[in-house]
Amino acid sequence: MKSHLWIEEKHKGFLGMSYKVEEVLFSGNSDFQSVDIVRTKGHGKMLLNDGLVMVTERDEFAYHDMISHVPLFVHPNPKNVLIIGGGDGGTAREVLRHPSVNKCTMVEIDAMVVEACKEFIPQTSKDLNHPKMNLIIGDGLEFVKKTNEKFDLILVDSTDPIGPAQPLFGKGFYQDIFDCLNDNGIVVSQGESCFYEVKMQTKLLSILSELFPVSLIYNFSNLTYPGGLWSFTFASKGLHPLKDFQESRVNKSGLKFDYYNKDIHKAAFSLPTFMKNNLAPYLKG
Amino acid sequence: MKSHLWIEEKHKGFLGMSYKVEEVLFSGNSDFQSVDIVRTKGHGKMLLNDGLVMVTERDEFAYHDMISHVPLFVHPNPKNVLIIGGGDGGTAREVLRHPSVNKCTMVEIDAMVVEACKEFIPQTSKDLNHPKMNLIIGDGLEFVKKTNEKFDLILVDSTDPIGPAQPLFGKGFYQDIFDCLNDNGIVVSQGESCFYEVKMQTKLLSILSELFPVSLIYNFSNLTYPGGLWSFTFASKGLHPLKDFQESRVNKSGLKFDYYNKDIHKAAFSLPTFMKNNLAPYLKG
Repeated sequence: MKSHLWIEEKHKGFLGMSYKVEEVLFSGNSDFQSVDIVRTKGHGKMLLNDGLVMVTERDEFAYHDMISHVPLFVHPNPKNVLIIGGGDGGTAREVLRHPSVNKCTMVEIDAMVVEACKEFIPQTSKDLNHPKMNLIIGDGLEFVKKTNEKFDLILVDSTDPIGPAQPLFGKGFYQDIFDCLNDNGIVVSQGESCFYEVKMQTKLLSILSELFPVSLIYNFSNLTYPGGLWSFTFASKGLHPLKDFQESRVNKSGLKFDYYNKDIHKAAFSLPTFMKNNLAPYLKG
Repeated sequence: MKSHLWIEEKHKGFLGMSYKVEEVLFSGNSDFQSVDIVRTKGHGKMLLNDGLVMVTERDEFAYHDMISHVPLFVHPNPKNVLIIGGGDGGTAREVLRHPSVNKCTMVEIDAMVVEACKEFIPQTSKDLNHPKMNLIIGDGLEFVKKTNEKFDLILVDSTDPIGPAQPLFGKGFYQDIFDCLNDNGIVVSQGESCFYEVKMQTKLLSILSELFPVSLIYNFSNLTYPGGLWSFTFASKGLHPLKDFQESRVNKSGLKFDYYNKDIHKAAFSLPTFMKNNLAPYLKG
């Protein structure tokens, strides 16, 4: 029987994005959010938290390449990496491709996301049992407050600042991040839409620019976030994503990417004028 | 009374994009297509041809900046510009901001689009009566076949290759374009989505690369085309969009842009790896 299901994500009361669903693979309610995995007609399997599209098989490479390889190729020798969130496993998968990394800790608050992705989306979750992985089900906010460990790189792979991820857009969290980064540490965070979430981008960058000597933002495009164009913030204790980027390392690594390359690395920091104007007071470095 | 209208654009049977409509301003059927102008809640006024979003007030600056200023700042002295399509007037508006341009001919097949935009979307159509404008209601295909005029720059600001714009994606059309370009002429064309329209991009670039010594493609992002990331092709008789781009001209021009800037100009030609791989055989220059 042909499915007539569609799933629709609504934004701000004026925009909807809908996807044809062939099969519902998982639906649950965790302590934190609703979790659904569906097989779509055009975008492969899709994870939704609270009805918002988090990941699809068709375009997840763009997000996961850009959250991870940009800082991993800027830091000269990233060994100890922390991921906050990232329950689908795609960010960890990319981090673990870099041989310099000897430990990847991932703190995801919602066990249901991890378990559902392990069962239904191996494309992203396939390395969550990797020997270098330290997977902790817990609160990232608490983790960075209490840990004595120091990290070279922290990737905040969070959902939008509603529901469980709300405190991950606050200053206290980023002060703790600063404190558990090594002296040449970098933090990259999911940075929202420059069209629809100007206030959120401004708030996040204003916090980062207060705490870090380098605070910048870069763009990439995927299919299934509203507007397509999306950002990651880049903040560090000194390393600059362009001045300290030795592009020859990309070829030397022998790694192949579907989205990332050395030109995209540099181009990503070139911002459309309206975005640069909105964020200029908080761009440092 | 509060409107409960929404308008939905469906793609390929698996993707929908919907917008809240506050008021329907115009609805008509021309000899070529249906033409609707609505006032939306989140994107200002919106023009739809055959139910597909062409232009919205909120993001039209991205498209119109990038189709026009990239070639206008590469050509050393663009005087005579031809626009094929472009009925909303936004491309002409940007072309006319360059003082070197002394004539801008626009050949739009559908008078209804022009008239409706003149009445309801002055933001884009405001310069269609400019003294340098030569607005022709007619078939762009026929125009480039028959004209004896030579142009420095031709902008193919067409709808998708269905309906009236279908022949604008064919080789005969681009041979005629080649023939009516000056020796250092450039043609830039609406180039579709690198995610959803790989075949179309490939076909268009393969035609351009057969005819022109330089054939390249560049990207920009808007809100209301499926996937957000969109392309323009760039083909020329010799001028290269990066090697022949004197970026100091941008500042010297004194022009202000909301999307375009010299960094975005260069960054736009950096392609995600999957796109570069798809199109590599046809990228020349």
